[in-house]
Amino acid sequence: MNGIFISLEGPDGAGKSTVLQAILPDLQNKYGEIVATREPGGVRVAEEIRHVILNPKNTEIDAKSELLLFAAARRVHLQSKVEPALAEGKMVIADRYIDSSVAYQGFGRGLGLEVVEWLNDFATDGLKPDLTLYFDIDTEVALERIKKNRSEDIDRLDMERAEMHRKVRAGYLEIVKSEPERFVTIDASQPLEKVIADSLKVIIERF
Amino acid sequence: MNGIFISLEGPDGAGKSTVLQAILPDLQNKYGEIVATREPGGVRVAEEIRHVILNPKNTEIDAKSELLLFAAARRVHLQSKVEPALAEGKMVIADRYIDSSVAYQGFGRGLGLEVVEWLNDFATDGLKPDLTLYFDIDTEVALERIKKNRSEDIDRLDMERAEMHRKVRAGYLEIVKSEPERFVTIDASQPLEKVIADSLKVIIERF
Repeated sequence: MNGIFISLEGPDGAGKSTVLQAILPDLQNKYGEIVATREPGGVRVAEEIRHVILNPKNTEIDAKSELLLFAAARRVHLQSKVEPALAEGKMVIADRYIDSSVAYQGFGRGLGLEVVEWLNDFATDGLKPDLTLYFDIDTEVALERIKKNRSEDIDRLDMERAEMHRKVRAGYLEIVKSEPERFVTIDASQPLEKVIADSLKVIIERF
Repeated sequence: MNGIFISLEGPDGAGKSTVLQAILPDLQNKYGEIVATREPGGVRVAEEIRHVILNPKNTEIDAKSELLLFAAARRVHLQSKVEPALAEGKMVIADRYIDSSVAYQGFGRGLGLEVVEWLNDFATDGLKPDLTLYFDIDTEVALERIKKNRSEDIDRLDMERAEMHRKVRAGYLEIVKSEPERFVTIDASQPLEKVIADSLKVIIERF
């Protein structure tokens, strides 16, 4: 593994995907070909697994089954796409990876840190990113953005979403604290241009 | 959970499925409706997961990914079919359950006892059968049966199969030894009628 492995993490709506697209050209100029991916990343088997998870008919899939399926899809995506690219010395940037399971299934859905870390470790053989950018955004700011974009009042679903956002964010903040070497926090409540510039700067300064 | 949960275990060709069909009428006479099942057991989501595992195109699925997918399918089957039947007080007999993963993935494919037991426990919330019949058959006897049925010589594939059989059997013997209360060993190298009679006797004496 000679390549550099970077992951982007944060709650939905923090702007990760937009930032990734925006920084790619500069990174390609500097580092050569970049593999920008997200699970299931166009890997056929992983897509099949994701299809099972996301099929709205499949109401029998609870948080634990979902976590097992995500872990399987993660492993296939890692082995088929991420590891080969790293072996060729490429930079790989993944929009979400192991920390999303910790934040969403571990904290958001209440399965706890320990079991999710065990499964992540099992599924990835312990392969962690060299650097993880955590896009932090306050729940109130995120809600305010939703409200502004729709010019509607906050409804019951938004309140549930806010509660989930709070749990997920609390999870992220805890894992960021536990691995200060790997994580760099980006203030995603700033204007987009500033978020993009900060992200690029962190990567270029590190590598 | 008021019902009785029984699992049948053993290497392929030990006669489990045949025995199950043969003992059902007597058991139904004695215990009322019996739910005879095997994973994925006609549970749609579990079938979908099994389809991903068994698709011959899916060569990217290694032993660990396979174990994760089996664990997810096991959980869905358990929650959708086994637990509801047990809750209604029915007897459930499953052709293979947690011990198959220990024997096949843990020992046969070399993932080890510990990780498979962890995943089984996670996927089933620790629900173990009240009784497990282990159909034991010596590798040489099993090979001899294959040879006899085909009237052909043993080929290279049979040798590989024999090697796998030996590992799987060694795995079963180890877990049987570790939980003497739950397991009863049936000598599956006996004539079929005797295997059927023994199996029926064990269940009726126990419950």
